[in-house]
Amino acid sequence: MAKQLIDARTLKGFRDFLPDRMMLRESILETARRVYRSYGFAPIDTPALELFEVLAGKGSEETDRQMYHFRDAGDRHVGMRFDLTIPLARFVSQHSNELGLPFKRYHMATVWRGEAPQAGRFREFMQCDFDTIGTTSIVSDIETVLVVHDLFAAIGAGEFQIRVNNRKVLTGLLNRLSLAEHSTVILRSIDKLSKIGDEAVVGEITDQTGCPIDVAAEVVRLLSVTGSCREILEQLPAIAAGDPTALAGVQELEQLVSGVMAAGVSESRVAIDLRIARGLDYYTGTILETFLTAHPGIGSVCSGGRYDDLTQMFSKNPMPGIGASLGLDRMIAAMEELGLAPTQQSPVDVLIVQFDPALMTRYLQLASSLRAAGLAVELFPEARKVGQQFKYASRKGIPLVIVAGPEEFAGNRVEVKRLSDGLQTGVSTAEGSAELVTWIRKALAEPGVA
Amino acid sequence: MAKQLIDARTLKGFRDFLPDRMMLRESILETARRVYRSYGFAPIDTPALELFEVLAGKGSEETDRQMYHFRDAGDRHVGMRFDLTIPLARFVSQHSNELGLPFKRYHMATVWRGEAPQAGRFREFMQCDFDTIGTTSIVSDIETVLVVHDLFAAIGAGEFQIRVNNRKVLTGLLNRLSLAEHSTVILRSIDKLSKIGDEAVVGEITDQTGCPIDVAAEVVRLLSVTGSCREILEQLPAIAAGDPTALAGVQELEQLVSGVMAAGVSESRVAIDLRIARGLDYYTGTILETFLTAHPGIGSVCSGGRYDDLTQMFSKNPMPGIGASLGLDRMIAAMEELGLAPTQQSPVDVLIVQFDPALMTRYLQLASSLRAAGLAVELFPEARKVGQQFKYASRKGIPLVIVAGPEEFAGNRVEVKRLSDGLQTGVSTAEGSAELVTWIRKALAEPGVA
Repeated sequence: MAKQLIDARTLKGFRDFLPDRMMLRESILETARRVYRSYGFAPIDTPALELFEVLAGKGSEETDRQMYHFRDAGDRHVGMRFDLTIPLARFVSQHSNELGLPFKRYHMATVWRGEAPQAGRFREFMQCDFDTIGTTSIVSDIETVLVVHDLFAAIGAGEFQIRVNNRKVLTGLLNRLSLAEHSTVILRSIDKLSKIGDEAVVGEITDQTGCPIDVAAEVVRLLSVTGSCREILEQLPAIAAGDPTALAGVQELEQLVSGVMAAGVSESRVAIDLRIARGLDYYTGTILETFLTAHPGIGSVCSGGRYDDLTQMFSKNPMPGIGASLGLDRMIAAMEELGLAPTQQSPVDVLIVQFDPALMTRYLQLASSLRAAGLAVELFPEARKVGQQFKYASRKGIPLVIVAGPEEFAGNRVEVKRLSDGLQTGVSTAEGSAELVTWIRKALAEPGVA
Repeated sequence: MAKQLIDARTLKGFRDFLPDRMMLRESILETARRVYRSYGFAPIDTPALELFEVLAGKGSEETDRQMYHFRDAGDRHVGMRFDLTIPLARFVSQHSNELGLPFKRYHMATVWRGEAPQAGRFREFMQCDFDTIGTTSIVSDIETVLVVHDLFAAIGAGEFQIRVNNRKVLTGLLNRLSLAEHSTVILRSIDKLSKIGDEAVVGEITDQTGCPIDVAAEVVRLLSVTGSCREILEQLPAIAAGDPTALAGVQELEQLVSGVMAAGVSESRVAIDLRIARGLDYYTGTILETFLTAHPGIGSVCSGGRYDDLTQMFSKNPMPGIGASLGLDRMIAAMEELGLAPTQQSPVDVLIVQFDPALMTRYLQLASSLRAAGLAVELFPEARKVGQQFKYASRKGIPLVIVAGPEEFAGNRVEVKRLSDGLQTGVSTAEGSAELVTWIRKALAEPGVA
């Protein structure tokens, strides 16, 4: 009565994380956690499933269409979260009495979108959001940029640039050119400037708004100012041309940039870029995108901005805030393409070869003493051929191997070897494992000779 | 055209994590990650959604009934994972060529079960599994107990006891009493011994198997042996009474306990308990449960065991292994009930009061310098009344507050205060923030006078 075997496969658009990628993910999450906390952001979590009515109609038409939703066993219409912003709005509204304002939270969690699968797009991915809720102070804008800065400086994906803009500058500009009623359409077009180029965007704006081509060209021209932050800030009042909204945006940009610089951020890492529009989002002030210098083509890896009212769907009290979101999977993809993703399949520092099962007690004690010193130690579970155990270590990317048989233990010493270059030595364990730990730490820190 | 406001609420059986509970969760996960890695377990992740056919019929009838499943937009029948074991079986079968054996993985992730909501039971919860796949070596059994030991020693929920047993002892015993055909039913009854008592279990066994009451009573009597590991091991050969399966189990228990002791585990933390049956699971050798000494009533917080074939649904090659799972939410519930769960709502070490907005640059620089020393620093975003800012710090459980106005900055010093006991001092910042960092570290480490 043989059972039918089931094909072991993942759903289309979904994927497994093997140890190499998962260790990279854990490392980035750990970095984000540390940086977010260092600025006073506290972690929260919300359910993967929410009532459909909580999620529907809050994002775009696209997110509604892509949402996984169904009726549960209790006939409730439920949906899987497709971002962390709507759950935050629900959370803040529900717990407003307990939280106290300002409320600074981070939330690093999985979201689901039934997108058409394509290269680098998945139906399940992680977002790492941080937001400051309940204040309009420019301090929060400055800190948002500082958090992104510290995060990218710590992740180790090379140089980066945070490009900032202010929606008020864009809105004021469109007001002045009598294009305010078309702002949604135009902001979406502006977002495409880096992808499809100036001419195509001018064409799109004239097509979609019916405005004269020279007006559309003027929009694109005004947004194309380049230079250092200081140089652009000097030109901005002329671009704002007396429009009070635009001028307010210019002033916020000035305060933002000077605050960020005062906190010690290098000028090369922050740019004012009027072409950043974030057209699909409901931002009202500061907006930002972040690009990896070595891989600009992958697009913004961390984006965000200021909004006037997070909770309008749930509450009559306006709740302003600002936040940004690290696209963890895009970051990992970039690091893979840049050759910065590790290939090690194991967190282990040193493998203890099981040479003789009769020495089990000694192996267990040796492993314990090394773990007590903070090392990650694997004891091979079977007394297979030494060559096979070395091969196992090598395949998993374990850097060091300890070999000890009856002779070594009798002489209170072990042999330890670095696999990358064959560096090998006998180390005494007569007075405990301190000497061995020192050798291991040094061998792990020194780059091996290729 | 006022929009209808939506009620901000979570689904029945689901819950939000506010910062206090989420920081506890992060802390336990971080501890588990460190301990698992120290034994060579590497992280993986799998999708929350799997093909229904992958998940269905693998657990119990109960898990099938409780599974969230639906047809997606592409009309695929999909289900949300209800444990991490079936996804592991699918994962190991799918990636067998890439992984290499033995394969040691940990997986800490959310699972969903549409259980009838009751106190302490949720429809969404986290499991923290670790498993060693592809070896039958007793070393893996020993290490499984050591991992659980190190994990509980590190988590800080007080003393604990790991109770071990071996399915072969139980199976052999039932063989010998000619009860083998009823073993599933009897093992489930045995699991209830601590809940419903000996007499009720004897009744259940006689009712359900039709065996004479004295035979059922003999089963329960034999399993009730108590004493230290050594004492029980001395009595076990008599209980096995020559049954080869039971004797094999006894030998494994002996090796397990002696290995664990050799690695330095205190005798008080490991017990042999023949009443541990784990009747609902497909274990075939070592089984274990873990209890908190201060809260045994909450049940086992970490359970597991050895199995003969993880991947039988997906592959013809038998894949043995052993693993255990920390019930994160049960652990958090226990710590709450024991008063061990922190109430702090913020990860911040020190709040910088914004006294004067004109000093923004100074505040930003002070915050940066403290962050560079590894402290978590929040700068209050608005120049509200100092009393209000202190209240904010106090409410969130932030231990220290820095106050500095024009006078302080002019004199190159700041005032810093510990809120728990009012300890306060002026610290010079004339030569940077080193002196301030030292004071802060000391004030954080010393317990405040209540």
